[in-house]
Amino acid sequence: MHTLEVALGARSYPIHIGTGLLDRADLLLSHIRGRQVLIVSNSTVAPLYLERLRKTLSGYLVAECILPDGEAFKDMAHLDLIFTTLLQHRFNRDCTLVALGGGVVGDMTGFAAAAYQRGVDFIQIPTTLLSQVDSSVGGKTGVNHALGKNMIGAFKQPNVVVIDTDVLSTLPDRELKAGIAEVIKYGLIRDLPFLEWLEGAMPKLLTREPHTLAEAIRRSCENKAAVVAADELEQKDVRALLNLGHTFGHAIETGMGYGVWLHGEAVATGMLMAADLSMRLGWIDEAAVTRTRDILIKAGLPVTPPDLSADEYLEHMAVDKKVKDGQLHLVLLKHLGEAVVSKVPAAVLKQTLETGAALGVSV
Amino acid sequence: MHTLEVALGARSYPIHIGTGLLDRADLLLSHIRGRQVLIVSNSTVAPLYLERLRKTLSGYLVAECILPDGEAFKDMAHLDLIFTTLLQHRFNRDCTLVALGGGVVGDMTGFAAAAYQRGVDFIQIPTTLLSQVDSSVGGKTGVNHALGKNMIGAFKQPNVVVIDTDVLSTLPDRELKAGIAEVIKYGLIRDLPFLEWLEGAMPKLLTREPHTLAEAIRRSCENKAAVVAADELEQKDVRALLNLGHTFGHAIETGMGYGVWLHGEAVATGMLMAADLSMRLGWIDEAAVTRTRDILIKAGLPVTPPDLSADEYLEHMAVDKKVKDGQLHLVLLKHLGEAVVSKVPAAVLKQTLETGAALGVSV
Repeated sequence: MHTLEVALGARSYPIHIGTGLLDRADLLLSHIRGRQVLIVSNSTVAPLYLERLRKTLSGYLVAECILPDGEAFKDMAHLDLIFTTLLQHRFNRDCTLVALGGGVVGDMTGFAAAAYQRGVDFIQIPTTLLSQVDSSVGGKTGVNHALGKNMIGAFKQPNVVVIDTDVLSTLPDRELKAGIAEVIKYGLIRDLPFLEWLEGAMPKLLTREPHTLAEAIRRSCENKAAVVAADELEQKDVRALLNLGHTFGHAIETGMGYGVWLHGEAVATGMLMAADLSMRLGWIDEAAVTRTRDILIKAGLPVTPPDLSADEYLEHMAVDKKVKDGQLHLVLLKHLGEAVVSKVPAAVLKQTLETGAALGVSV
Repeated sequence: MHTLEVALGARSYPIHIGTGLLDRADLLLSHIRGRQVLIVSNSTVAPLYLERLRKTLSGYLVAECILPDGEAFKDMAHLDLIFTTLLQHRFNRDCTLVALGGGVVGDMTGFAAAAYQRGVDFIQIPTTLLSQVDSSVGGKTGVNHALGKNMIGAFKQPNVVVIDTDVLSTLPDRELKAGIAEVIKYGLIRDLPFLEWLEGAMPKLLTREPHTLAEAIRRSCENKAAVVAADELEQKDVRALLNLGHTFGHAIETGMGYGVWLHGEAVATGMLMAADLSMRLGWIDEAAVTRTRDILIKAGLPVTPPDLSADEYLEHMAVDKKVKDGQLHLVLLKHLGEAVVSKVPAAVLKQTLETGAALGVSV
């Protein structure tokens, strides 16, 4: 088992990564203050792992709230189901919410923990690669709104993150690949050696070789923890770098309807769009764009933007959080392994948006 | 104009109290970062004061969200109207939400500001006595849930609180009195000299003599600010003392249906119930209970609990936030002018609950 620390002063917390951790009561107990524990999970994950977690938490008063599976249900109405369950069981301020699931479950449980009685404790047990390497670490929580993704939420750090790599054995291939998109992202934005390692390790990652998986998760979490420690509330431009490809990705997700593209798939294509834009601004050369495209293809990720018009892209990008005083700011690549936040001239952005399907083809 | 400071380190903010402050652009401008301002108000207050505030904020891009008036609408569905307005206007992270209204508007606007894009700026312009002396100061924000009052929310401090005492001229008598309940509370829990002053000043308060009103507001805000500075997140028992009468009050409000009793009315009767319970535990004598009853009566506040059974009271009190490990904790009076949080034996509590209407009658 590896243990990392997210260094946030009084809100610091450990991330444990290893096999068989779902059964390790010792990793959880010191982080639970009261007797009441609510496990929030979804209809896919609960049948697989809920009973094991319940057994690990025997001795507590454990309630459960099982949400329908999918980004389409990450909304206020389903958030309210968590509150209703908490109130029906008369859970008080000492209670602890445990998220057992992927990013949607983690984001909703975290926001529920932030808002229930103005704040209760919260533990992350992420069960998808995407949530293990990204959303479970760093405290961004929330729900979608019909008019925008992740628009309602809170910064709410968990007490502990427990990553049991065994649970990835039941993860569908498509979701594994979507998680690898965020793994690749860390290489692109701040860790060239990791990117190089990934280029070699990709076949083993895709066959879920346990040590390769654990290493990819550990190095991703280290990168994420370092960024979050430097800029917890995204007040500088440091944390924003984690959003490489995300503004394009959000536009793809919103434009196609939540759930049609997986988040990681949209981010993968979005990262390639960001690389293309970086090249058009003269920061990286065509070889770097090709290298970005190639590792995404090697991971089985989509690299062809969906057929939305440039205006549709712009519309969905404009409601995003990257607009300052009317000027769009995007995360771009200064080099492979180094990202920056930059204003983007509308004309150049339009070129990238209009390149469309050609982006996915090596020139 | 008086200016107090709520001392909370980096989250410190001023409270300005005086006449004509609605027109004082200088009090607001330094607290607004971007160009986008959303005024949230309600259907009663907006026709009276919205245009004046809009004029004060000319030069900004001002949008508005007018909610229906009343505690019955303090819910997630109406909170969502604020988010929808923000998103329709494409408001970004630099935007500022301004609450122009009473406690409901302030609580909802504050929670919306806490949650929109995980946190934007927020200004309180309270227009009822209750919100001026209580809810606008201290950062407790939130909405009700069908299963419990104020169960969903956030601690979100405003950037500034602007209290224009002129607006009280349009406040209905019943709401003025409800506000006075919280004013009396400060005397009861931590400021005996203020309680004594209030006993003399009550007639002038009720006729809205401007200097008496301003003095009552200033001394209330000073008390509130001191408590909040000592215990911002209600992690010690200090801030909890502000809840004198509130657990009973919440039970009254919930039991009768939100909006039948005004919050301040329920708190007034609740404070008398707390005083009765304190006497039964041997802490204060009957003269102190009578003095509590008398000043509430002098303020025209209800002192007779509604006709709910003891079991109904207990049911509504149990879901409240004052339960620790199954044991009910209440704020009680050690002396007049000094409150404490204490466990309460169920049998003694039941006596108070069964005293019912007799509580309102001098023995």
